Amino acid sequence: MNALDIVVAKRDGRAHSEAEIRWLVDGVTDGSIPDYQLTAWLMAVVWRGMTEREIASLTEAMARSGETVDLSRLREPAVDKHSTGGVGDKTSLVVAPLAAATGLTVAKMSGRGLGYTGGTLDKLESVPGLSVDMSVRRFMEQAEQIGLVIAGQTAELAPADKRLYGLRNLSGTVPSQALIAASIMSKKLAAGAEGIVLDVKVGCGGFMSELDQARSLAATMLAIGRRAGRRMAACLSGMDQPLGQAVGNALEVAEACRTLRGEGPNDLHALSLTVAGLMHVVAGRAGRPAEVEAELMGAIQSGRALELLGDMVAAQGGDRGCIEDPDRLPRAPIRRVLEVEVAGWVASVDARAIGETACELGAGRRAKGDAVDPAVGLRLRAKIGDRVDRGAELAEIHARTEAAADRAEARLRAAYAIVSEPPVGRPDPIVIEILT
Amino acid sequence: MNALDIVVAKRDGRAHSEAEIRWLVDGVTDGSIPDYQLTAWLMAVVWRGMTEREIASLTEAMARSGETVDLSRLREPAVDKHSTGGVGDKTSLVVAPLAAATGLTVAKMSGRGLGYTGGTLDKLESVPGLSVDMSVRRFMEQAEQIGLVIAGQTAELAPADKRLYGLRNLSGTVPSQALIAASIMSKKLAAGAEGIVLDVKVGCGGFMSELDQARSLAATMLAIGRRAGRRMAACLSGMDQPLGQAVGNALEVAEACRTLRGEGPNDLHALSLTVAGLMHVVAGRAGRPAEVEAELMGAIQSGRALELLGDMVAAQGGDRGCIEDPDRLPRAPIRRVLEVEVAGWVASVDARAIGETACELGAGRRAKGDAVDPAVGLRLRAKIGDRVDRGAELAEIHARTEAAADRAEARLRAAYAIVSEPPVGRPDPIVIEILT
Repeated sequence: MNALDIVVAKRDGRAHSEAEIRWLVDGVTDGSIPDYQLTAWLMAVVWRGMTEREIASLTEAMARSGETVDLSRLREPAVDKHSTGGVGDKTSLVVAPLAAATGLTVAKMSGRGLGYTGGTLDKLESVPGLSVDMSVRRFMEQAEQIGLVIAGQTAELAPADKRLYGLRNLSGTVPSQALIAASIMSKKLAAGAEGIVLDVKVGCGGFMSELDQARSLAATMLAIGRRAGRRMAACLSGMDQPLGQAVGNALEVAEACRTLRGEGPNDLHALSLTVAGLMHVVAGRAGRPAEVEAELMGAIQSGRALELLGDMVAAQGGDRGCIEDPDRLPRAPIRRVLEVEVAGWVASVDARAIGETACELGAGRRAKGDAVDPAVGLRLRAKIGDRVDRGAELAEIHARTEAAADRAEARLRAAYAIVSEPPVGRPDPIVIEILT
Repeated sequence: MNALDIVVAKRDGRAHSEAEIRWLVDGVTDGSIPDYQLTAWLMAVVWRGMTEREIASLTEAMARSGETVDLSRLREPAVDKHSTGGVGDKTSLVVAPLAAATGLTVAKMSGRGLGYTGGTLDKLESVPGLSVDMSVRRFMEQAEQIGLVIAGQTAELAPADKRLYGLRNLSGTVPSQALIAASIMSKKLAAGAEGIVLDVKVGCGGFMSELDQARSLAATMLAIGRRAGRRMAACLSGMDQPLGQAVGNALEVAEACRTLRGEGPNDLHALSLTVAGLMHVVAGRAGRPAEVEAELMGAIQSGRALELLGDMVAAQGGDRGCIEDPDRLPRAPIRRVLEVEVAGWVASVDARAIGETACELGAGRRAKGDAVDPAVGLRLRAKIGDRVDRGAELAEIHARTEAAADRAEARLRAAYAIVSEPPVGRPDPIVIEILT
């Protein structure tokens, strides 16, 4: 076999054999295939696509390209959830304790944010003292002891994916469903959970703006996971506007805590119940999410879910007081309230622009390795469909400096479209579709 | 501007501006754009194609990326011809002296062969003593003095093309009409001739096997040349079987000499008259090739064309006696005649297989820089449409060793298809179409 033949085969629209894909991934991992052949191949994949069988082979070969985590040694089968990324997406912080509080084991490796989307690790680290770095052994111990752990990658998971991912960003070959699905799922398979729930975002704040694209990506990922013997479910959820109100690390932790107390925004609450419900479905404890809704609500009302988040935070060295009283989380020196200037109805809140604004305030990073500011961010008081009166609170900016707040104010106002007529029909539900 | 945006634009099917293309070619030339972005871009070009305007911009930017030859300083405007490459294609060796003997100035920079196609320089160098390496000054002097010079590239012509060409071979991005046309024409433009005749090969021994592909490539190259102010013409010629009988360096020189004496194979003779005629057309000395046919035949019958080839060989240090008596050219120790085993009609002679066979005998090179054996090769006694009797001569192998001749014999027999029924209709003419 040689790399050129593989590039030519894909260029000509032929499907690769499993052996070819394994050979290719070996060459990606050991560096024997040069970058310039890989990027040509990646562009050919963007052009020609891959069959479901090819995608599954690619995913499994990448999952096996480095270390893998063996969660089957846990007493209870572990479930994982993955979001394709969005703005204000703190779902994991709600769902993981909720699932753990209702009997599931959640041993999750999360990522950091890049660009306008945030990452769960960055959010967690806004809790003073909390560490997401730990050995696999410690990771497994915590999963056994409290049934809940969220850490950074403890091992070199899927190094072949890491190399291809880097090349995709540099070669204009990101937007391929096959490559996106294989990249996400290779890390999920390597991370070892037996049940995996996917939250695929649809809208301008995610990377799939069309419903059918998102549905097809979800279906592809479900198929990959099932071929690899994992129990899978997915939901498609809205990302035209940010999820919940808070965008920014500490602000999102606080909102997650409020939601675990039953006082969160409706969209985040509803989505969290669905995702946690699906985690019970993939764990074999329910046929559909609604069957465990009462149990999940019980874990909120009893305070058990919030307490478990506190246990996790404490186990990872964090100040659990912050979970009980989110006012103890880092706070930005400047807090500026934006008022509504002309009354009307909120027609849209551009999620991507909001994400960019928070990133510019310091909540996100432009490049890998940049530090993020835990305290800064935005709180959106008005969302799509809301009636807003002149002088009412539109949003709140949490900034490090007045100059930063000024820039954010201008962008934030531009991100809102307020119209004089009430919207026709009801706003889209947060959970658009469930795929089990 | 940045390279990633350019890759993304082409991936999404957008046309590049002239400024973008110039920026890209600058980055190709100075090395500031990495290989892995260029190969992604090349694959996107294979996928999406380029507009005529984009191709012209790319060609001109590549032509200007290095040194250029200024042939306008010659007293007479110079004409050039280019073949897209085939098997047994010694047309330049016939056409250049023929054109020069009828009043044109031919100052031509040629290439070497690679793989199964031969190169004019390799053929010329089979004449003992002959050198194709000379300064631009010497090149111009010889053009003035005898009106005929064929040399290797005297300057670093189109280095941007050189880099992209190398990457195309390694990244499966060769088969793009836009890239092929731009590559060929960038070197032709840089080489300075005011009139250019293209001989585009059609058939399994060239790289365009379909007539409409070849026609479209020719039209693209004509348009590029005209945009750059050159006088252009093209012909499409057959390359399903080798051109003429000889395949191999000295054998081809000998056949070219025979053709200049009026004793060459019909196909080579006819194609040479057409191409030389078109050179008169682009020089403004005729409206169509037929108008100068008598003049060209006169240069053959008078011996003037052959004499001029001898003058050129002598001027470049070669033994002109070889031109007068081709038996003085290097000869292979083994000469084996293949006889027809079963009588019938020749249905096909696979040009590519013949080219590969000659290459394996040592007439061609597998990799750049390999030495070629001037003496070895093949002489095809039977061609498509010929009636062959059992025991008649099918072909002749000129080999360095008996073992090499054995291998060639097997491949050669397999390259011939001999059928028991006479072919229906007349064989295709060698000149399929003329585009002026």
